[in-house]
Amino acid sequence: MGLSEFALIDHFFRPLGANRDDVVIGVGDDAAVLSCAADRQLVAAVDTLVAGVHFPLDTAPGDIGYKCLAVNLSDLAAMGAEPAWATLALTLPEADEAWLAAFAQGWADLARRYNVALVGGDTTRGPLTVSVQVMGFVPSGCAVTRGGARPGDDIYATGTLGDGYGGLRCILDGNRDDEHSRYLRQRLNRPTPRIELGLALRGIATAMIDVSDGLAADLGHIVEQSGCGARIELDQLPLSTALVRLAADFAQRPELSRLEQATAAQRCAIIGGDDYELCFTAPPGHAAAIEALSHRIDCPVTRIGRVVEGVGLSGRTAGGDSVPLAASGYRHF
Amino acid sequence: MGLSEFALIDHFFRPLGANRDDVVIGVGDDAAVLSCAADRQLVAAVDTLVAGVHFPLDTAPGDIGYKCLAVNLSDLAAMGAEPAWATLALTLPEADEAWLAAFAQGWADLARRYNVALVGGDTTRGPLTVSVQVMGFVPSGCAVTRGGARPGDDIYATGTLGDGYGGLRCILDGNRDDEHSRYLRQRLNRPTPRIELGLALRGIATAMIDVSDGLAADLGHIVEQSGCGARIELDQLPLSTALVRLAADFAQRPELSRLEQATAAQRCAIIGGDDYELCFTAPPGHAAAIEALSHRIDCPVTRIGRVVEGVGLSGRTAGGDSVPLAASGYRHF
Repeated sequence: MGLSEFALIDHFFRPLGANRDDVVIGVGDDAAVLSCAADRQLVAAVDTLVAGVHFPLDTAPGDIGYKCLAVNLSDLAAMGAEPAWATLALTLPEADEAWLAAFAQGWADLARRYNVALVGGDTTRGPLTVSVQVMGFVPSGCAVTRGGARPGDDIYATGTLGDGYGGLRCILDGNRDDEHSRYLRQRLNRPTPRIELGLALRGIATAMIDVSDGLAADLGHIVEQSGCGARIELDQLPLSTALVRLAADFAQRPELSRLEQATAAQRCAIIGGDDYELCFTAPPGHAAAIEALSHRIDCPVTRIGRVVEGVGLSGRTAGGDSVPLAASGYRHF
Repeated sequence: MGLSEFALIDHFFRPLGANRDDVVIGVGDDAAVLSCAADRQLVAAVDTLVAGVHFPLDTAPGDIGYKCLAVNLSDLAAMGAEPAWATLALTLPEADEAWLAAFAQGWADLARRYNVALVGGDTTRGPLTVSVQVMGFVPSGCAVTRGGARPGDDIYATGTLGDGYGGLRCILDGNRDDEHSRYLRQRLNRPTPRIELGLALRGIATAMIDVSDGLAADLGHIVEQSGCGARIELDQLPLSTALVRLAADFAQRPELSRLEQATAAQRCAIIGGDDYELCFTAPPGHAAAIEALSHRIDCPVTRIGRVVEGVGLSGRTAGGDSVPLAASGYRHF
């Protein structure tokens, strides 16, 4: 195949992103030139997906193209930022046009929905690795950080937790093909970045993070950076029917086995990663506003616990027993 | 090794970059928050280096850390942009602390010189791949693109050309250790991004690009996007003594052999990549100003040809013979 790096990016990606007036120069020069509004701050995030580490080797290219953008948009959502632009660094073992076309379609599905323009890229030969940087905006001073939680705040999560982990297990444990397995795999491969809710939570959430490494790890970052602790009500964790049905099959996995007092699905929700739901904190006085937002945006939000004095995380069972939760999740090293 | 992704980036990179007042939130949240001045446009570039493709597998980690930033800064230089921030996506086979410390030091050497703050990163396990995005600024409307060259403009190059190719051959053809080989290897591993000259050429250069894929390929982009042609004076190409001395050893390589009328060193300069010098065009009336800039900034600049009507590139030998130059250079695919 004779397409150069430039032609590859150009051919597959230039026509597929959103068109934005603030892109002065997009793909095709040494760098992109972009217009920033004066009263807004730039928000930038980067995330890399490596084949065999972040997704199984046989993942469909459309799902990879979708997910590499989704996980980055999820980071913007967690800051309360509005997406604008992305760059793509794509390392591929070979320039397979069918693979690239499917990858680009998966990317475009999401990029159009959230009005994200591809403004730069680099295609190189090597083991399959996809690194994406997204850029977006917040009104100056309005970004939601990890460090603003205060004792007494409620803790919330969007959607359902643990599905990403469940989807991965369904693939690794034999690629089951029943309805629940398909649902969990779809949740793993096509997570929904909670952009609209993240935007609506500016001025309401005191701290926010997206659940990429597992609830315990990610909520752990919030309490560490906020200088407080958190107590999770285990029976309040939002769980999908599919996960509840299938979780018993993976409950004995070493990474889950230490949480003996929790149900199998709760363990997946606490330890599993790859959910890309938002976890955020807010004072109890905002509960009604949050419920109204959840309905308006059609994004499920569940109160799952409370910020407390002290440090670290604990869980509480339906029976009132306290369960220590180490702030650890998936680690690539 | 127990360091998580977050701790890795934090431990090695947070203390090493430049500190900038416009970084509102840097490494350590879901995304960085950055302040943009109202009268400037954002300029963003991304480049990936893959072990065994863009650098030999045994390249020193400090050189990799330096070069992954240098090649991106070179893209900003080619737009006439001032660097500000960078994000780093680092994929590593294992979390080797000594490797990371050396990599970070190489990065920091360059980041401090050009006042670049690291504002985000992602460390993942996998085959060694380094993807960097840099962001910088131009006064609104002042970016220098590839598309502004006009017939009659002079063509210039900074520094010397072909050294990056020569350095690579010195390594691949047996890791020679004489003085000239060491010089060429240093040019390959620690290229100088021509930031100061790029900034000074705003309002003077009509088109600009950095020489990453070889002069023929990169000047080819300028003439294609400018809708004109170019004629290179082969005997004007700026060549290092080291390259002139050693180039005969690699002149028979297949990628160089078709340029029979050029000397061995000229062939390296035309076809070889990885120089990260600037190639730019400017009207003849700016010649004195460019020479003055070259002296003031202490950056060698050589006039190497002229923009002409028509399409494509040609070379002219000292004897006046015309040599067709296809606009092709290194391609990863």
